[in-house]
Amino acid sequence: MISVVFIGFGNVNSHLFHAFLKADTVQIVQVFNRSKVDTSELFGIPFTSDFAEIKEADVYIIGTSDTAIAEVSDFLPFDNRLVVHTSGGVEMEKLNSKNRRGVFYPLQTFSKNKAVDFEQIPICIEAENDADGKLLQNLAKKISKVVHLINSAERAKIHVAAVFVNNFVNYMYLAGKEILDENKLPFDILRPLIQETAQKIETLTPFDAQTGPAKRHDQNTIEKHLSLLNNPNHRHLYEVITEMIRKKFE
Amino acid sequence: MISVVFIGFGNVNSHLFHAFLKADTVQIVQVFNRSKVDTSELFGIPFTSDFAEIKEADVYIIGTSDTAIAEVSDFLPFDNRLVVHTSGGVEMEKLNSKNRRGVFYPLQTFSKNKAVDFEQIPICIEAENDADGKLLQNLAKKISKVVHLINSAERAKIHVAAVFVNNFVNYMYLAGKEILDENKLPFDILRPLIQETAQKIETLTPFDAQTGPAKRHDQNTIEKHLSLLNNPNHRHLYEVITEMIRKKFE
Repeated sequence: MISVVFIGFGNVNSHLFHAFLKADTVQIVQVFNRSKVDTSELFGIPFTSDFAEIKEADVYIIGTSDTAIAEVSDFLPFDNRLVVHTSGGVEMEKLNSKNRRGVFYPLQTFSKNKAVDFEQIPICIEAENDADGKLLQNLAKKISKVVHLINSAERAKIHVAAVFVNNFVNYMYLAGKEILDENKLPFDILRPLIQETAQKIETLTPFDAQTGPAKRHDQNTIEKHLSLLNNPNHRHLYEVITEMIRKKFE
Repeated sequence: MISVVFIGFGNVNSHLFHAFLKADTVQIVQVFNRSKVDTSELFGIPFTSDFAEIKEADVYIIGTSDTAIAEVSDFLPFDNRLVVHTSGGVEMEKLNSKNRRGVFYPLQTFSKNKAVDFEQIPICIEAENDADGKLLQNLAKKISKVVHLINSAERAKIHVAAVFVNNFVNYMYLAGKEILDENKLPFDILRPLIQETAQKIETLTPFDAQTGPAKRHDQNTIEKHLSLLNNPNHRHLYEVITEMIRKKFE
């Protein structure tokens, strides 16, 4: 049995909370959050918003915003316990060194009110010492089949790559919707294409999956498309990305 | 019963062929292709590569490359029959006007050897006259539940939007992979995030689904990310898209 206390109850920690709640050999001791949490969400797990009342546990999981992680770790009124954060973009060393430090980073995008299946979510583990690394791996394996030991430098690179395939991809969806909205066409018409574009990546490399006028150097279509784009942002994006794809497939 | 002849047997037409083969009330009369096709792929349907031998049918479906559509329609040795192409990026009027013209555009990305379920694929129909429009709608409904009447101007806009959510999205995957490759990290680690990013769009608008450092104006993370990107293309993309997201969510 591994016991955990959640420090902060935002998006990541509340999803982790639900995943651990289902795991037989994990005991959630307590949830701490600065502001009150709807207790109906806590399924009887004790809650506090007072740092002095935080209970003893094997692992403390800080799930605050990136900028609050260091400060919250300073406020913890104990030492030599295992304290981890869940962020892709923050070095382990930002945690106060009075405790044993680690990272428990689930590589996924979490939305409120949308359950995710943790079993396939990669969990990136880092720890200052081997025993803690093993404990965190065991904890991760209770909810996921995909557990990686990843140091802070590697995690930072993964986090940048994640920005491309998540945030920037979503912005392409947003641009696509804007183009259709402008012309009073329904965004729904693109949904199957969006799903298949992601699905293809399950079996093809992105290089092999690339298609389109830029890849086949179809200058007629490229110019026609540019003439159809009224929004300067869309036109600029089209030019920049088309040129990169063209060069990649020269 | 609607009878069809396929003109060209590339990616789109061979996928349509398999879909129509399963539909009870569609008769595939013949497949024409300039070069020979592996007959084992044709399930006994007659084949020709001679324009003079093309048989009579209700609909002729041209599925060649965009640049060949006009020329192939010129070569057809008959007139006043219904001839359609399957392209998102070509006007209906590019077809030779000796025949009744139309478009049958399935809005999807097709890969060789990867079956797709046509039922959810939007099929965009256009025709010069109402009777042909109805016939094409009936034909489309035999394989898909999502059939739209879309004119050439609208279809061109949809095609540009499709470039953003398919070709450009795939290039973001490619950039993500390059960043991981550079650092000898496995691309597999991003796959669940890629799938979830697409899945979110089934229930959220792209605007509501947007997350990340650019949206929350997290300048620290943005600068850290830029410092981690070694490839000038990646850095330029990061700067351009980050600035657009920042402005969008000001």
